Amino acid sequence: MCAGKLARMSDTLVAASLTSKLERARVAARTLATTASGAKDAGLEAIARAVETGASRILPANELDLANGRENGLSAGLQDRLKLDENRLRSLATAVRDVIALPDPVGEVLRGSTLPNGLLLSQVRVPFGVVGAIYEARPNVTIDIAALALKSGNAVVLRGGSAAENTNRVLVELLQEALESAGLPGDAVQTIDEFGRDGAKQLMQARGYVDVLIPRGSAQLIETVVTESKVPVIETGAGVVHLYLDESADEAMAVDIAVNAKVQRPSVCNALETLLVDSRSAERLLPPVLAALREKGVTLHADERARAIFADAVAATDEDWATEHMSLDLNVAVVDDLDAALAHIRRYSTHHTESIITNDLGRAERFLAEVDSAVVMVNASTRFTDGGEFGFGAEVGISTQKLHARGPMGLPELTSTKWLVRGAGQVRG
Amino acid sequence: MCAGKLARMSDTLVAASLTSKLERARVAARTLATTASGAKDAGLEAIARAVETGASRILPANELDLANGRENGLSAGLQDRLKLDENRLRSLATAVRDVIALPDPVGEVLRGSTLPNGLLLSQVRVPFGVVGAIYEARPNVTIDIAALALKSGNAVVLRGGSAAENTNRVLVELLQEALESAGLPGDAVQTIDEFGRDGAKQLMQARGYVDVLIPRGSAQLIETVVTESKVPVIETGAGVVHLYLDESADEAMAVDIAVNAKVQRPSVCNALETLLVDSRSAERLLPPVLAALREKGVTLHADERARAIFADAVAATDEDWATEHMSLDLNVAVVDDLDAALAHIRRYSTHHTESIITNDLGRAERFLAEVDSAVVMVNASTRFTDGGEFGFGAEVGISTQKLHARGPMGLPELTSTKWLVRGAGQVRG
Repeated sequence: MCAGKLARMSDTLVAASLTSKLERARVAARTLATTASGAKDAGLEAIARAVETGASRILPANELDLANGRENGLSAGLQDRLKLDENRLRSLATAVRDVIALPDPVGEVLRGSTLPNGLLLSQVRVPFGVVGAIYEARPNVTIDIAALALKSGNAVVLRGGSAAENTNRVLVELLQEALESAGLPGDAVQTIDEFGRDGAKQLMQARGYVDVLIPRGSAQLIETVVTESKVPVIETGAGVVHLYLDESADEAMAVDIAVNAKVQRPSVCNALETLLVDSRSAERLLPPVLAALREKGVTLHADERARAIFADAVAATDEDWATEHMSLDLNVAVVDDLDAALAHIRRYSTHHTESIITNDLGRAERFLAEVDSAVVMVNASTRFTDGGEFGFGAEVGISTQKLHARGPMGLPELTSTKWLVRGAGQVRG
Repeated sequence: MCAGKLARMSDTLVAASLTSKLERARVAARTLATTASGAKDAGLEAIARAVETGASRILPANELDLANGRENGLSAGLQDRLKLDENRLRSLATAVRDVIALPDPVGEVLRGSTLPNGLLLSQVRVPFGVVGAIYEARPNVTIDIAALALKSGNAVVLRGGSAAENTNRVLVELLQEALESAGLPGDAVQTIDEFGRDGAKQLMQARGYVDVLIPRGSAQLIETVVTESKVPVIETGAGVVHLYLDESADEAMAVDIAVNAKVQRPSVCNALETLLVDSRSAERLLPPVLAALREKGVTLHADERARAIFADAVAATDEDWATEHMSLDLNVAVVDDLDAALAHIRRYSTHHTESIITNDLGRAERFLAEVDSAVVMVNASTRFTDGGEFGFGAEVGISTQKLHARGPMGLPELTSTKWLVRGAGQVRG
């Protein structure tokens, strides 16, 4: 038998085995879709307890992943994201209990009416069914996304980063056991980590088995899923986030917001990447704002006009304007006016979050109306683009696409709807 | 120069020319996004008048398409769908005025709150931006989809069937002239028909230029777009629609609804394709129901148990159960009970519309809860799944996907949302 034929046979076996997991998830999803909130919450409480008391099973598997990571040259940052300990397990259990406390979106009646012919129409929230998640080697996402999916009545198929494979296998076992102990189908949580990259590819082709796919992680991972998936995707994208200092901006407010937006947590998607300043206020605002940022250790990548005013900056490259640094690096440019700021934002924004500092009502309203991003702000730090800050209680991610959900997503964004029509024999004339 | 190189150069030229159209649509979309309802309505009224008075330009182009169609052996049905005349132009103008009369969804505030820190949060409806439409040789869709897109503040890029190319070119010219005459950007309507199949392919790749793609037409066209597109798609799918006659079904109601659902307009997606009957009521219900259907000229494709009761039927094949006949053909099966009916529907439904005829409350509620379709009915004809019947005033299509929109879509389904955050200098702690 030639190698090609063997490879194809092995592909077929992988596909069959993976399909069987997807089918089991779908059967479990049917049960979950009609499971009452109380029973789902009991399952989530069993999960919280299993995470809290599962250290003796979880930590050795995690240590194995960490050892492999060190051997394979995994960066210190990624090792830290991969690492679990007793404290982190307690935090994870708390996060699950926070999800329990949220209202169940399933069954909410969104619209309804009685038609002239007497038909009773109602649009109700229903679970998607099976939610797929593709993410990187962060075991907390395994628990997090499973809890959110289960609370909203969905089964979930997980594909985590291979560097967390051992940890995730144990976590999924615990999740399944906890669900079974609460009388719910353990099949509602599936991992396909054992199929490697091939598994992720097949998940992206699994129309009819998976209702929606949510990628979480690097811009590259998201781009791959968005362009390759045949299953509908919710894109939780990168943030090349802009702050524009209008001519009328208050100096103290500009300093506070620029520093907060860039420095408070530079590694997240709502952190500031590019500061734009109106040329008429550049001399007034740039020195105090940029001095405050430099004091916090920010490296400034500035255009020529900005460097003419504030010398302690490196020259920005063409790539800088399109880069999500996720570090203490900030692009700075002087622009002629609001139109030039809007043009810069149109060209480089990833449509996540942009903010203007201004005291001019007309320009504030123009900025709100014309910037085409998920969240557009006036006189506020871009760091507020967050499900928790918006009062959603949980954050599924921040959508940068326009279909289905845009901006911070809570539990309702993990649901679809269904129209119910109750009649008494009506026919169409 | 070799042929391959020439073909590649020509590909590049096509791509550049098509991209320039998409860019012009995007610029126009920016204007439309902030155009007030009154101005959009004036543009639509100019379009209605142009369609009404444009017969001398439209009909010769349409006659050319029809002549080409006859030469190329276009079926009589397709020729009829392609054909325009004075009456049809008047109907099209009326349809545009019906769209004018609808409320503008843009600017609607969907949610809002004041956060504890004083930030004012509001979620408002905004246009998608650029809507792409891929459809078949039906010139009425050109006017229809353009009017719906413009009313909801979107620019539109159209790819109609090549058999209607001349008609569509004239219609798009009229649309553009009408918009310009009303002071709106003519670039808001673009056709890419001249690029042929290659144009459709590029439209499906045009992430960043096109915000959402809506295929309208045959199951095959929709399947191609759904699986090949990298742009997010709203799937308006086929309907393998089921009606289940429960043990307790009223005989007269079963006859009326089965006949209405199958016969009133068999060529549309909400028409009935498969009748399921509980075995305990089959002897009582099948003879009157099937006799009434036969009398209306329906060809019955029945399983063995149904044929044992009603002989005037052909044997159903395995493919019949998954077929959207769109003709006076109906599949008929006897099932053991509600569970068997639900299993059959799970296996063969396209998740469009299913209905149960019953007088049993428990089984009615189980059917509503467990059938995973866009519209689920009790004691009503499946023909009611329709934007007009639901009171939406216009029908963009019927979505069979779970993301963004499910079931009949009105104007709001052609919009996205945006979060506006108004602050007074707030930073995150």
